[in-house]
Amino acid sequence: MSELRYDPMRKSWVIIATERGMRPSNQQKPEQSRPPVSKSSCPFCPGNEDRTPPEIFAVREPGSKPNGPGWTIRVIPNKFPALTIESPRERYGKGIYDVVSGFGAHEVIVETPSDQEQMPDFTVAHLRDVFSVYKNRLADLKRDQRFRYIMIFKNYGSEAGASLCHSHSQIIAIPVTPSLVAVELASVRDYFHLKERCMMCDIIHQEREEGERIVIEDEHFVVFAPFGSSFPFELRIAPKRHSHDFSVIDEEHLYHFSTVVKDVLVRLRKVLNDPPYNFILHTAPPAATRVGKPDYWSSIGEDYHWYLELIPRMTMIAGFEWGTGFQINPTSPEDAARFLRETEI
Amino acid sequence: MSELRYDPMRKSWVIIATERGMRPSNQQKPEQSRPPVSKSSCPFCPGNEDRTPPEIFAVREPGSKPNGPGWTIRVIPNKFPALTIESPRERYGKGIYDVVSGFGAHEVIVETPSDQEQMPDFTVAHLRDVFSVYKNRLADLKRDQRFRYIMIFKNYGSEAGASLCHSHSQIIAIPVTPSLVAVELASVRDYFHLKERCMMCDIIHQEREEGERIVIEDEHFVVFAPFGSSFPFELRIAPKRHSHDFSVIDEEHLYHFSTVVKDVLVRLRKVLNDPPYNFILHTAPPAATRVGKPDYWSSIGEDYHWYLELIPRMTMIAGFEWGTGFQINPTSPEDAARFLRETEI
Repeated sequence: MSELRYDPMRKSWVIIATERGMRPSNQQKPEQSRPPVSKSSCPFCPGNEDRTPPEIFAVREPGSKPNGPGWTIRVIPNKFPALTIESPRERYGKGIYDVVSGFGAHEVIVETPSDQEQMPDFTVAHLRDVFSVYKNRLADLKRDQRFRYIMIFKNYGSEAGASLCHSHSQIIAIPVTPSLVAVELASVRDYFHLKERCMMCDIIHQEREEGERIVIEDEHFVVFAPFGSSFPFELRIAPKRHSHDFSVIDEEHLYHFSTVVKDVLVRLRKVLNDPPYNFILHTAPPAATRVGKPDYWSSIGEDYHWYLELIPRMTMIAGFEWGTGFQINPTSPEDAARFLRETEI
Repeated sequence: MSELRYDPMRKSWVIIATERGMRPSNQQKPEQSRPPVSKSSCPFCPGNEDRTPPEIFAVREPGSKPNGPGWTIRVIPNKFPALTIESPRERYGKGIYDVVSGFGAHEVIVETPSDQEQMPDFTVAHLRDVFSVYKNRLADLKRDQRFRYIMIFKNYGSEAGASLCHSHSQIIAIPVTPSLVAVELASVRDYFHLKERCMMCDIIHQEREEGERIVIEDEHFVVFAPFGSSFPFELRIAPKRHSHDFSVIDEEHLYHFSTVVKDVLVRLRKVLNDPPYNFILHTAPPAATRVGKPDYWSSIGEDYHWYLELIPRMTMIAGFEWGTGFQINPTSPEDAARFLRETEI
C-alpha cells in the first residue's frame, strides 16, 4: 500500500508508491523507459476496453454498452494508481516524521477513441466535451470531503512523462494539500487581506495594460507568458472574470476556453515543432479545505482565481534547479509571447 | 543581460538568461540536445585551456604556468554564465512584479585533467583535494557581502543536465535567497525556536536509532535515504557533529567526507548501473543573509546543519509533479538503503 510522507525540512509531501515497484533490476534511465505500444495492445483503443479497469464514466453513442466500443470520451481508474480509494485514511506521527496512508483517487480520461488525433487536432466541440468531463469529474470528486485537493493534468510526449501516446489526461484526488498549492493559497490570501483584490485579477489587469506577454485574448479568456516564467514558452490561460472554481464553469465560458486552448496548442505545435508538454488545471480546493483550514483559505473564493498552466518541456532540470527551486530560463516570456502571437495558424 | 524575476504567487525566483538565447529555431527536445564532444575540442582537457575564460584558481605542479597544462584541478568562469559579476546590482518593482539585475558569479570546477575518470574513480586523496577547492571557493565568495546564497552542485550524465562529460562541478553565487532554501531556513529556525535543537541533528539521531534508512556510517559522517525521499535512491550525507558551514570544515572531516562520498558513488554506480545524478551541497548562506535577514536566520548557525544531497535521475518529472511540488516515488527509502548497504564493493 502506498503512503504519503512529509519532509519536515522542505515542508513538502511525497507519495511512496511501491506497488509501482522499482527494484534496481528494473530501474531504467529515462530515455530507455518508453517502449512503443502497438494499436492492438493499446488499452485506450476501442475494442480493448477489457484491458482497463471498468469505466467510471463515458460519453457514449445511444444504445452502446459500458466497457465496450461506442464511446467518444472514457474515464477509467488508473491501472497503476499512486493512491487508492480503498485505503484507510490514517494519519500518524513517527518520531519527527508524519505519515498519511495512501488514500485517494487516480483516474484516466481517454480523450478520444482515435489513436491518430492529439488534442490540437480535436474540433472545438469535442474539446469542449473533454473539458465538460473535467468539470463533471471535479464536481463529483469534490463531494468526497476526505479529499484536500483534486488536480487534473495532462502529459503529452514521453519527455513530459506520458507512458502511452493515445491522447489522455489524468485526475488525482489527494488527502493532503500539496506544498506548491499551499504556497499559492497563502500568497493570494495574504494579498487579498492586504488589498481586498484577487492577485490574479491584478496580474491580468497589468498584463493587458502592458500587452507584451499576451499571446491571445478573446471575450472571456486571456493567454499570457508569466512575467516570472520558469520555463521557455510557459503559459497561463485564465478567465478574465473572477472565478475560483472550474467545476462551476458555465457553457459559454467552456466554449471560449476550448477555443483558446485549441488555438494556443496549435501555435505551440507550429512554433516549437510538436513539443512535449504538461498542462495542469489549477482550481480551488474542495470545500473541506476551506472550512477546516482557515489558515489556507479565509475568503471562500474571493482570493483564488482558477487557471490552466501549460509548460512545454524544452529544457533539462539539473542540479541547480533541484537544489534551489530556482529555474534558469533561456527564453524571455516577452520573446515567447511574441513568437506565438505572430505565428500564422 | 540576465535578470532575476519573482513570481508573487509561487513565491519563487527565476533567472531569465536570454544570452543563453533560445529562439524557436534552436529549441530542441531534451534528447536531441547533447552532441558528443571529441577530446580535441573538449574545453576541459589539458592543452585546451585557451578555450575557456582565464582561470580563477588551480591546483598546479610547481613551475607550471596559469592557463596552460600542469594542473590537477582547475576553476574557471562559466563560459555561458547565468549571472555575471559585472552586472550592476539593482532591485526594483514593476507594477505587481519584482526584478533584481543578473548580478552574481557562475564558476566551473574541472575536477581532473583526465577525460577517462569520473568522480567514483578518483582516489580519496584526489577527491579530498576537489572538496578542499569547494571549501576555498566558498570561503572566497562569502567575502562578497552582496551574495545572498552560494551553491555548489554537480550534474553527471546528460539526463542530469551535464553538457560535457569531462568530470566537473559548478558554483553559483546569487543575489537572492532561493525559494527552497528560504523554506528550509525557516523550517529549521522555527524548529530550533520550539525545541532548542537542530532539526538535522534530531533527524540523524532518529535515523541512527531506526537504522533501516542508513546506507553507511563512519566515525564522522552518516549517509541515509531520507524518510520523505522524493526520488528513488535519493541520499543525504551529513556530518554527525553539528556544523552549519562547509567553508570551515577541518582536515579530518574533509578526509572522512571524501571517503564516504567515494564509497556511496561506487555503490550507486554498481547498484543502478552508472546512473545520471545531481548532487547539491547545502550549506549556510553567507553572513550577509544572517545579519540582514533576521526573519530567515536568527540563531547564527545553531539551527542549520550542512549536508550533501545526492539524487540519481531515474524517474520522469511529469505534470503532477510540476503542478503540485509533489513527487511520486516508486522506491521506498528503506528498500533503496538496503540495496545500497548490502552491495559488496
